[in-house]
Amino acid sequence: MSRKIRMGMVGGGVGAFIGGVHRCAALIDGEIELVCGAFSSTTEKSKESGQSLHLPDDRIYANFEEMINREKNLPESKRIDFVSIVTPNHMHYAPAKMALENGFHVMCDKPVAFTLNEAKSLASIVKQTGLIFGLTHNYTGYPMVKEARRRVKEGLIGKIRKVVVEYPQAWLSERIEETGYKQATWRTDPSKSGKAGCMGDIGTHAENLMEYITGLKIVELCADLTTFVPGRELDDDGNVLCKLENGAKAILFASQISVGDENNLRIRIYGDKGGLEWYQPEPNTLYLKWLDRPTELFRSGNSYVGGAAAAHSRLPFGHPEGFIEAFANLYRNYAFAIRARIDGTAFDAELYDFPTIEDGIRGMEFIDAVVASSASDKKWTKFN
Amino acid sequence: MSRKIRMGMVGGGVGAFIGGVHRCAALIDGEIELVCGAFSSTTEKSKESGQSLHLPDDRIYANFEEMINREKNLPESKRIDFVSIVTPNHMHYAPAKMALENGFHVMCDKPVAFTLNEAKSLASIVKQTGLIFGLTHNYTGYPMVKEARRRVKEGLIGKIRKVVVEYPQAWLSERIEETGYKQATWRTDPSKSGKAGCMGDIGTHAENLMEYITGLKIVELCADLTTFVPGRELDDDGNVLCKLENGAKAILFASQISVGDENNLRIRIYGDKGGLEWYQPEPNTLYLKWLDRPTELFRSGNSYVGGAAAAHSRLPFGHPEGFIEAFANLYRNYAFAIRARIDGTAFDAELYDFPTIEDGIRGMEFIDAVVASSASDKKWTKFN
Amino acid sequence: MSRKIRMGMVGGGVGAFIGGVHRCAALIDGEIELVCGAFSSTTEKSKESGQSLHLPDDRIYANFEEMINREKNLPESKRIDFVSIVTPNHMHYAPAKMALENGFHVMCDKPVAFTLNEAKSLASIVKQTGLIFGLTHNYTGYPMVKEARRRVKEGLIGKIRKVVVEYPQAWLSERIEETGYKQATWRTDPSKSGKAGCMGDIGTHAENLMEYITGLKIVELCADLTTFVPGRELDDDGNVLCKLENGAKAILFASQISVGDENNLRIRIYGDKGGLEWYQPEPNTLYLKWLDRPTELFRSGNSYVGGAAAAHSRLPFGHPEGFIEAFANLYRNYAFAIRARIDGTAFDAELYDFPTIEDGIRGMEFIDAVVASSASDKKWTKFN
Amino acid sequence: MSRKIRMGMVGGGVGAFIGGVHRCAALIDGEIELVCGAFSSTTEKSKESGQSLHLPDDRIYANFEEMINREKNLPESKRIDFVSIVTPNHMHYAPAKMALENGFHVMCDKPVAFTLNEAKSLASIVKQTGLIFGLTHNYTGYPMVKEARRRVKEGLIGKIRKVVVEYPQAWLSERIEETGYKQATWRTDPSKSGKAGCMGDIGTHAENLMEYITGLKIVELCADLTTFVPGRELDDDGNVLCKLENGAKAILFASQISVGDENNLRIRIYGDKGGLEWYQPEPNTLYLKWLDRPTELFRSGNSYVGGAAAAHSRLPFGHPEGFIEAFANLYRNYAFAIRARIDGTAFDAELYDFPTIEDGIRGMEFIDAVVASSASDKKWTKFN
Repeated sequence: MSRKIRMGMVGGGVGAFIGGVHRCAALIDGEIELVCGAFSSTTEKSKESGQSLHLPDDRIYANFEEMINREKNLPESKRIDFVSIVTPNHMHYAPAKMALENGFHVMCDKPVAFTLNEAKSLASIVKQTGLIFGLTHNYTGYPMVKEARRRVKEGLIGKIRKVVVEYPQAWLSERIEETGYKQATWRTDPSKSGKAGCMGDIGTHAENLMEYITGLKIVELCADLTTFVPGRELDDDGNVLCKLENGAKAILFASQISVGDENNLRIRIYGDKGGLEWYQPEPNTLYLKWLDRPTELFRSGNSYVGGAAAAHSRLPFGHPEGFIEAFANLYRNYAFAIRARIDGTAFDAELYDFPTIEDGIRGMEFIDAVVASSASDKKWTKFN
Repeated sequence: MSRKIRMGMVGGGVGAFIGGVHRCAALIDGEIELVCGAFSSTTEKSKESGQSLHLPDDRIYANFEEMINREKNLPESKRIDFVSIVTPNHMHYAPAKMALENGFHVMCDKPVAFTLNEAKSLASIVKQTGLIFGLTHNYTGYPMVKEARRRVKEGLIGKIRKVVVEYPQAWLSERIEETGYKQATWRTDPSKSGKAGCMGDIGTHAENLMEYITGLKIVELCADLTTFVPGRELDDDGNVLCKLENGAKAILFASQISVGDENNLRIRIYGDKGGLEWYQPEPNTLYLKWLDRPTELFRSGNSYVGGAAAAHSRLPFGHPEGFIEAFANLYRNYAFAIRARIDGTAFDAELYDFPTIEDGIRGMEFIDAVVASSASDKKWTKFN
Repeated sequence: MSRKIRMGMVGGGVGAFIGGVHRCAALIDGEIELVCGAFSSTTEKSKESGQSLHLPDDRIYANFEEMINREKNLPESKRIDFVSIVTPNHMHYAPAKMALENGFHVMCDKPVAFTLNEAKSLASIVKQTGLIFGLTHNYTGYPMVKEARRRVKEGLIGKIRKVVVEYPQAWLSERIEETGYKQATWRTDPSKSGKAGCMGDIGTHAENLMEYITGLKIVELCADLTTFVPGRELDDDGNVLCKLENGAKAILFASQISVGDENNLRIRIYGDKGGLEWYQPEPNTLYLKWLDRPTELFRSGNSYVGGAAAAHSRLPFGHPEGFIEAFANLYRNYAFAIRARIDGTAFDAELYDFPTIEDGIRGMEFIDAVVASSASDKKWTKFN
Repeated sequence: MSRKIRMGMVGGGVGAFIGGVHRCAALIDGEIELVCGAFSSTTEKSKESGQSLHLPDDRIYANFEEMINREKNLPESKRIDFVSIVTPNHMHYAPAKMALENGFHVMCDKPVAFTLNEAKSLASIVKQTGLIFGLTHNYTGYPMVKEARRRVKEGLIGKIRKVVVEYPQAWLSERIEETGYKQATWRTDPSKSGKAGCMGDIGTHAENLMEYITGLKIVELCADLTTFVPGRELDDDGNVLCKLENGAKAILFASQISVGDENNLRIRIYGDKGGLEWYQPEPNTLYLKWLDRPTELFRSGNSYVGGAAAAHSRLPFGHPEGFIEAFANLYRNYAFAIRARIDGTAFDAELYDFPTIEDGIRGMEFIDAVVASSASDKKWTKFN
């Protein structure tokens, strides 16, 4: 009998946002079960969270150290396969390191770490241990993002000339971090979020999405980061001009003070033969644009939508799949990778791709580059 | 320790569409676990399906009779709480009846039965047993549908005058039932689908949605059903004029030959003070329209969106929730109802509503009424 | 030297809506000049209007009788070529008849007359005189409506099965005719508007648009007209099921109590090979839908858009043309027809089409049929 | 008797694009008449054009010098009031200068001149002569752009923090200037277009629109201009970061190689209390965004839309007005200004505003600044 892949969670207690998303995403496809967790900084809250998740008391831990130490001593038939880390940025590194060093695979929220050095250290542990490291740059999990990538790779839009990737949000337009709103508090605190605010939290998603779809790396950039809300320490808005490796130009911007914009990640890519547009709030549509023909609406679930998109849709056309389903695609692919490792079978890492520690390093380098560029009088800052 | 609610499934084997949706919907919130099933008409296929779902061999059954007989003899700590029925229409009644008669709650796909008589028979068994019967008129699970209902109930749009509810699809534009496409084959076969095709499959969703949001019942209708695809036996398109109980008028139409329309359920409601519009392919937006003010875009996840909508959203604004999440709201509420029954606690059936056998009867009556009206020369057919 | 075509106007004084539209439409292309008018029911108001339009005093008339009598006695080099009639419905017939009988072409607002008999009488005068009669069913002037018609005629969407044409407006949701709002007052008054309200005013546009694009006539219909606003005498809402001559089915509805809907004329046409959708508030886009390919956005001004559409666009793609431009296409074509008559040259009535008295009769017959059907218990009323 | 304002046109012969737009815009409201022109570089083409416009032969001139010399000798009751200049950029200065120096008002296409020096020279002549100079930055003529400006001025969205203004087009994605396509040929030729291509042609519109609505000037910018199409001499794409005078940040980009984007001018403005969004292809909608309330769709023609917008709409809500109507608002206001000058009456330059020579200078300075910045290694270039 085959079995589900077993997950233990670090963080994500009652009241957290992203922890719940990770759980829905892990559970929806029936490939993963949540068997334990250290959900909060206090034992009491962790218990409360674990109980509300219907976990047995002996699998609800006070902290990640306890979780990892206990789990590794459980029989192989019970113990977790991987640790899912959904804590704020400054608490990614320690549990990820300890999990890997004790033989557990790791799925981690983004950005992967607090500093680039931490990220590089994790990469070296991943390399040494050979364990599987996943990173939840979840927007790459959308079927139509995968369709976009495939179309670019096929050459459908020709040589890419220009990209506009934007990620405007509104939620930090006021100083809500002063109101006790937990999501805001740590994200605006440099001791928890890292050296960037908006650009670390969502600018990295924009960077990751652009490089994922185009297959092109940013090689130079010119950034202007701003903190608009008085009293805030980190950037809440950032505008970046980019040069891509093939000579293309890009505009990348992210904002948390764009009043009325909810979570409006959008990417437009223009080649010399065609163009592509995708917009996260309506994620099941991909616009294909042409030189001399009408724009086409590619919609997920249709037979004309190809391999990777089809392999990441659960529903026929017209039945909207959303944020959780895209997130779940990362978890499902990650579970497939672990299962293949367990079973000793082949894993199609191209079809069932998910972001890895390499994407994590790239994100940390991006944060460093935009912060440096923003402080510089020079127009262009290298980003290799 | 609390536990998950245990589900056994009838139907939904490999290759089925709606079975997979039911499973995702049941699993996503971590309130329900799938513990057994009779997934297919052949033992072999049922085994294959169960194994792919990581079920132990002794909980994969050859048919629903075996499942119910065996499960009822398992210890209370192991056996299922409810049966989920996801077979074609003509196979709802027998497993539902048997499950209820053996003490299991039932969640059933829609339309609830093959005939109105079957539906009434089920209703009487439900009444006798006091068990909990759920029906997956899933569109009522969307947060913004619940918001619409709340706004109507509050009187925000005044007295309702007119409703336009439409459900155009394209997928049966050609005679694909001849190509071995299973979803199409049974839905176009009167011996499996019942006396209506399009109107039974999706017309009932439109009827249910209208009555759910408006709180108004259809009292008379005038239907024109058509079979456009040569050789097909059941209607693939239907247009209906309706009178509602408060004097309002409605247009209801459903179609499976509307080329290019994927699953475009839309409802527009006009009162004497305001109007509402909701469109399933973009389900997280509700349009509020006013006499003298700009139209407002109500978006799920925002603080201005009220009780029921908030209680049925998992994500903040801008993170799209889709078809599965709406479907999952029915399952989660259904699990809450069962849990309350187990725990002997109160259940807020207003806040955590789900469709029941009464909705099922209403749907079967609707099918009877539109079929009768379409065959009649009289303009209006009563529908009580 | 060529000259502009000369127009005299009946109605359309200061404060009128549609008169101003007719003037903009007539002037925009430089083919027509306004040289005289009888703009209002009082001499004083007519003077005021004519002066604000920079007309010489001796071409501002007290009433249409004076205008026609005086103009026919002017030298050919000065007198008008045609009369534009923009009065309320009950005042179309008399000036149209007199103009025709005195040798002037006539352009008339819709519906063409107060009764079907008047319309038939006009048709017979048009036939006798051989003069050119135009009717402003202006929505047929949009480039993308012409593109839709062309695509249907070419067989691109195959045999038409279903049409949904709708025209919801909000503006009569309250009893504004009691507030002295002139547009509302006459339109809700059976002694000025005729036997239908909403269905005469805008239902006829929907009927005309459907028949124009599809080339199919309604042969039977089943109507349900309602007066929602208390105290009003004429229908302010109407829902109609239709059978078209090729066996297709249609839903046609029009409403003036659809709160929040501005002027939302929309048509959807489904054939056995493809579908079309056009929406007046975004008139420069035509959706082409396919069985197995992505929906295409046909946009006016592009090279892939064909003959008639191109011949009725003034601007390149992306430069929106609106209501006045579509209206102006009727006037320009009408001017072309008159010029060809003057010059004795050929006129391409297929390419430069405009609605005629035949469309006017059809509209009056439609009004009669829906009013009769609505009062009948029979399901279907013939409409030949 | 009042009279129409008389216009003579320079340029805009058969086959030109913008000349026809100017004529439609001038004629539509019946305030202006076209009485003469020098439409082309050859006498023959000018004749042909003038005749097709129904002008008398003696008012069709071989060139602008002839036109101005002859017109100034006509009696006051016949001669033109103003000259409309619709030639390519390098031919604006000479006719504008000569017209002004001979006592004629001037309406000029944008950018106002070939160089900043020419623009300044014109400004000084305008100042000396006191004549009225208009410039067709036509996008400021849209009703909802005026509504946006009014809302900003009223403080509705609070202090502006961020602006994103973009103007992507597709039409120069290929080297169509080699195919004899006249519009492309001169616009890509530095001897006719000036030192910038895309940024001069449409970047200046973006700059003008942003400053018009926000009332804020760009004070520093960082530009990256690119020529993507091989063999082309001028930029066909440009990305610019801006600092505005109040500390706000802006992104401005324009492109002529954005495949599939027709004429997609869009502006988003974010303040500390609200936001605004306007999109030229759907020009009758203005999105108002709020911190804690649903986004509102302000639609032109509604009673809640204010003074300036109402004064620049011709139609009730739901009747789309487009590019020509917006353009016409400039001409109508310009005619009002001239009429007030003639009549010696007051002119409300705030309500009936139109762009002037000052906007023209600003545009030329913008061109200089972006070209300089793009060539510089410094991040920020002053733009005062």
